[in-house]
Amino acid sequence: MEERVQLLEDESIDDLQLKNLYLIQKKNAFRFGVDAVLLSDFANVKTKHRVIDICTGTGIVPFLIYGKYSPKSIVGLEIQEEMVEMAKRSAKYNNLEEIITFNQGDLKNKKLLDSLGKFDVLTVNPPYKLNNAGILNPNDKLAIARHEIMCTLEDVIIASRRLLKDNGRMYIVHRPERLIDIFELMRKHKIEPKRVKMVQPNAKKAPNIVLVEGQRDGGAFLKWEAPLCVYNEDGTYTKELNEIYGREG
Amino acid sequence: MEERVQLLEDESIDDLQLKNLYLIQKKNAFRFGVDAVLLSDFANVKTKHRVIDICTGTGIVPFLIYGKYSPKSIVGLEIQEEMVEMAKRSAKYNNLEEIITFNQGDLKNKKLLDSLGKFDVLTVNPPYKLNNAGILNPNDKLAIARHEIMCTLEDVIIASRRLLKDNGRMYIVHRPERLIDIFELMRKHKIEPKRVKMVQPNAKKAPNIVLVEGQRDGGAFLKWEAPLCVYNEDGTYTKELNEIYGREG
Repeated sequence: MEERVQLLEDESIDDLQLKNLYLIQKKNAFRFGVDAVLLSDFANVKTKHRVIDICTGTGIVPFLIYGKYSPKSIVGLEIQEEMVEMAKRSAKYNNLEEIITFNQGDLKNKKLLDSLGKFDVLTVNPPYKLNNAGILNPNDKLAIARHEIMCTLEDVIIASRRLLKDNGRMYIVHRPERLIDIFELMRKHKIEPKRVKMVQPNAKKAPNIVLVEGQRDGGAFLKWEAPLCVYNEDGTYTKELNEIYGREG
Repeated sequence: MEERVQLLEDESIDDLQLKNLYLIQKKNAFRFGVDAVLLSDFANVKTKHRVIDICTGTGIVPFLIYGKYSPKSIVGLEIQEEMVEMAKRSAKYNNLEEIITFNQGDLKNKKLLDSLGKFDVLTVNPPYKLNNAGILNPNDKLAIARHEIMCTLEDVIIASRRLLKDNGRMYIVHRPERLIDIFELMRKHKIEPKRVKMVQPNAKKAPNIVLVEGQRDGGAFLKWEAPLCVYNEDGTYTKELNEIYGREG
């Protein structure tokens, strides 16, 4: 299988330890983190669903969602060409080009969004830092992935509404300090927040990751889930986190 | 001291176990709960502050705040005459009529609010249930304390803005499922949410109480605190909760 795709010298192909799926990543950058794993676990996806992941990067969330839920199809949208090209090679490597497709483009491009169709489920792990540092290099690929340079949180939510079917569900992973903005912008664009889960480093620490489920034109009722702790007090992973990673506790 | 105030037959006078303070309560109703204790602990109050507690009921929050922080003065505002009358007798019993005063009135009455002045700190444990059950008796005193019959969450926030000094702080205890509304209405009325603390029955359960600090005309930055658990897994109170109650852990 290795001969079907070419790896660049600074790339590795990594076993996702899930249904024999692999992902091409840079050896030293753009490596997926716990956010992507938590987001794919938080989403409710059925086999009949059409799914889209925006700000998909090298495509980790589509592959994890495929591995967990086997939906009908998954589209990944990403603005950075280099990452889209890597994601496409991962799809080829995994023999999933019929099911997982990647598109290069700007989520602010309404024509592009309309050409992709409507989806039952949308996932997004957007740039989570405000672009207010004023010292960022707009050619820095890592900065584009982490800071709101190419798109703001509001751009992400506007695109999500456009891409979702009536009553379709959006799942976003972000930082707790942005939760007011998330709620405010989701309501402004008529995606009602329905479910929230906080993630804490451990039981004694403040949450540092938040997962939010919204429903396009949904009714107002917000359900808070029990928070997830990543580590036990002794520094080992919690049972819950190991279950999400599909490991023995 | 007992001779200075009269108790009705259905009333008890209860030791708050804090600086020798007592509170008059009904034996079977309007008894203070954990919400009031958590709210008074969550508030940051200095000795130079003027404090107001709206929806004060029988005045538990003013007495707890006095016991913990000894601010310059505390005003309690309550619409139900019977409760105001009980709160006034508690102030008299505690010999605190110079420092803790109670006013009967409607928080939607702008003239009344303006007559009370401006405050450094405002606390509120408002009715937290939406008045959408349609079966409530508007003469039911307990229903008025628990459901949004006499005032809505928005009324509470509008009154809070009016009562706070510039950059004054508001502290509210509520239910997590209303947190979107709280954030949205605070921002609408220019009280910026600055700090949030969730309270869970135990480490495995979803939060059922939320504490929010807002600042009048404050800048946008939201700090999430580590959640508080009320019970350990064995059903005993946690060390943190015992500390809030001033008990040995």
